[in-house]
Amino acid sequence: MSFKKVVVAGGGVLGSQIALQTAYWGYDVTIWLRSEGSIGRCQPKLDKFEQQYLEAIEGMKGATSENDPAWCPGLADFDSFDADECAARARKAHDDMKLELDLGKAVADADLVIESMAEVADQKADFFKKVAPLMPEKTIIVTNSSSLLPSQFTKDTDRPDRYLALHFANSIWKHNVTEVMVQSETSDASFQAVLEFARGIHMQPLPVKKEKAGYLLNSQLVPWMLSGLDLLANGISDPESIDKAWTSGTGAPKGPFQVFDTVGLTTAMNIVDQYQKVPGIATPLLRKMMLPYNFKGMKAVLQKYIDEGKLGMAAGEGFYKYDENGDIIR
Amino acid sequence: MSFKKVVVAGGGVLGSQIALQTAYWGYDVTIWLRSEGSIGRCQPKLDKFEQQYLEAIEGMKGATSENDPAWCPGLADFDSFDADECAARARKAHDDMKLELDLGKAVADADLVIESMAEVADQKADFFKKVAPLMPEKTIIVTNSSSLLPSQFTKDTDRPDRYLALHFANSIWKHNVTEVMVQSETSDASFQAVLEFARGIHMQPLPVKKEKAGYLLNSQLVPWMLSGLDLLANGISDPESIDKAWTSGTGAPKGPFQVFDTVGLTTAMNIVDQYQKVPGIATPLLRKMMLPYNFKGMKAVLQKYIDEGKLGMAAGEGFYKYDENGDIIR
Repeated sequence: MSFKKVVVAGGGVLGSQIALQTAYWGYDVTIWLRSEGSIGRCQPKLDKFEQQYLEAIEGMKGATSENDPAWCPGLADFDSFDADECAARARKAHDDMKLELDLGKAVADADLVIESMAEVADQKADFFKKVAPLMPEKTIIVTNSSSLLPSQFTKDTDRPDRYLALHFANSIWKHNVTEVMVQSETSDASFQAVLEFARGIHMQPLPVKKEKAGYLLNSQLVPWMLSGLDLLANGISDPESIDKAWTSGTGAPKGPFQVFDTVGLTTAMNIVDQYQKVPGIATPLLRKMMLPYNFKGMKAVLQKYIDEGKLGMAAGEGFYKYDENGDIIR
Repeated sequence: MSFKKVVVAGGGVLGSQIALQTAYWGYDVTIWLRSEGSIGRCQPKLDKFEQQYLEAIEGMKGATSENDPAWCPGLADFDSFDADECAARARKAHDDMKLELDLGKAVADADLVIESMAEVADQKADFFKKVAPLMPEKTIIVTNSSSLLPSQFTKDTDRPDRYLALHFANSIWKHNVTEVMVQSETSDASFQAVLEFARGIHMQPLPVKKEKAGYLLNSQLVPWMLSGLDLLANGISDPESIDKAWTSGTGAPKGPFQVFDTVGLTTAMNIVDQYQKVPGIATPLLRKMMLPYNFKGMKAVLQKYIDEGKLGMAAGEGFYKYDENGDIIR
C-alpha cells in the first residue's frame, strides 16, 4: 500500500513543516484549516519554511559528510545530492500547497490524515468526530500529539484499526526522526503503511509497538531531568555542578538544567505535576518497585524561579543567564 | 590550609592515576601497598600511565582550542602550555614516586590520605581501622569509593570531621572532573581543603554537599539507563530505536543500550538489583511519590543476554555486536 494524497489538519509550526516535507517528497498535500484567519496565519509560515528549506539546501553544498552539521538528511541522500533539483522540489512543494477550509472536500480520497492541532483534548476529540464520517474507507488517520495518549481518541475516530500516532520533532528536515506509535487496536497493516510513509518523506521512523505516554524520547528525558532536579531539591549540589557531572561524564551537549531552561520552567512544572499524579494509579506491586523522588522539593525549587520571572532561556534567565544569542553567560 | 604530602592507599588502575596526577602537580606522593606482590602489579601501571601522559602531551601540541579532543585539561592551562615542561613534570612524577609497604611510615606527616582500594566493604573498613591510629592529627582522609556510601566507614576512621569522599573517573588527566562529597559529620574546613586540593591537581571539583548514593553522575545515569531498559522490558520498542530516540533528540553520543554495553551487562544487573532493594527502605510518603518501573521484566531481559554470553562491548556482543575496535557492527 502506498499513499498518494495526504491531508494535514492544522497549519501551526509543526503542521506547516509536516505539510511542506510531505509535498517535498512528491505527495499531493492539502492543509485543512478551520477559518480564513487560520489561512492568514498559515501562509506566512509556509513562506518562511520555504526560505528555510532553500537556505538549508544552499548550506548542504558545503557539507563534507552525512555527519556534517550542515547536512539535512530529510532533504536528500548524500550520495546523490543535487542542490538545484532540491531547490526546485522545495519551491514546487510550497507553490502547489493546497489550503482548504471545507473538511469534506479536503479529506475526499485522502490516503492519510495527519492531525496536528493544538494540544487541547476537547479540540482534538471534536476534530476526530467531525472528520470520521467524511473520510473514505481506506483513509488512515494519525495524531501528532506529544502529551495526550492516542487511545483517548480511538472511539472518536470510528476506525480503531486505521488510527495511530506519528510524532514529529521540530525542524524535521534536519532532525528527521519520527516516532510511529500504535494504540491497542491499530492493525499491523496500518502500522506498516505509516512506517513506509515516514520513510517515504525521508524520516527515520522509530517503531513504538505499544502505546506509551512520552513515546521513546520523553520516556527517557523526563526521568533523567527529574533525577537532576531531585539532586537540587534535596540540597545535594547546584545546577551547574549537576549539569557538568552529566556533560563531562557522558559527552552530551547539555545537562538537565540546560534542558529545563530550553523547554521553559513552566513546562517543567507541568511535567513534575504529571509525574506526581501518574504513580497514584500504580498497583501496590508496581509501587513497591518504585524510585523515590522528592517531588514536593522539586516543585518548590521550580516555583521559586518562576516567581522570580526566571522562566528559562526564552526569558533571558532560568537556572542560567543567557545573552541575546541564547548562550549562557558564565 | 595547603597540602604537601599525599598518600594514595592502593595502586590499582585508579590509584596509580591519582598518584601520578598528584605528583605531576608537585605534591610529595607515596603509594601504600599491602604486599610485595602489589608493588609488582603497581609499578607496570605507573610505567604505562607515564607513557600515556607523555603521548597525551605530545598530542596536545596539535590542539587548536581547549575544546579540541586532543587537549587534556588536567595537564596544563591552554594559554601557557609548554610541552617540554609538561613532559619533564610527567617523568619526574613517575621517577619520584614512592611505593611503601609500611603503613605507619607511609602516612607519617601526611596531609591527605586517599583510599583507593577494591570496592569491598570489609577490606575498606579494615584499612580505615588500621590507618586511624597511625595518622597525625592534621591528616584528612578521603575515599574514592563509587558504590559504597562513605558514612558506613565514618566510625572506622576515628576522625569524622576530617573524613569525606573524593571520587575520580577514569583517565583523569583528560576527564578532569571529580566529585567531592561530604558525609554528615565532615567539617566545612575539611570540605574546603579537599576542594582546594582537587583544583591544585587541575581537577574541576563538583561539590556534593550532602551524602548521596551514586554522587551526581550515577544519580542521573542510573534512572536514565533504567528508563531505557524499562521500554525494552515492556515491549515498547527495540534497543536501536530507543538509543536513536535519545541520541537524535538530545545530541548525546550514546543511548542507554550503548552505555549498558560499555559498562557490561553483569554490572547492569547489579544496578537493577540495587535499585530494586533501595525502595524497600522508603517511607510510605516517599513510596507514594515513586515512579513505576518493571524491574522484573528488566532483569529478565538482562538475564537472557547474559545467559547467551552477550555481556557487552568487552565480550564483542551485548545489545549490539562490536568489531575489534569496539565499533558497532550495523
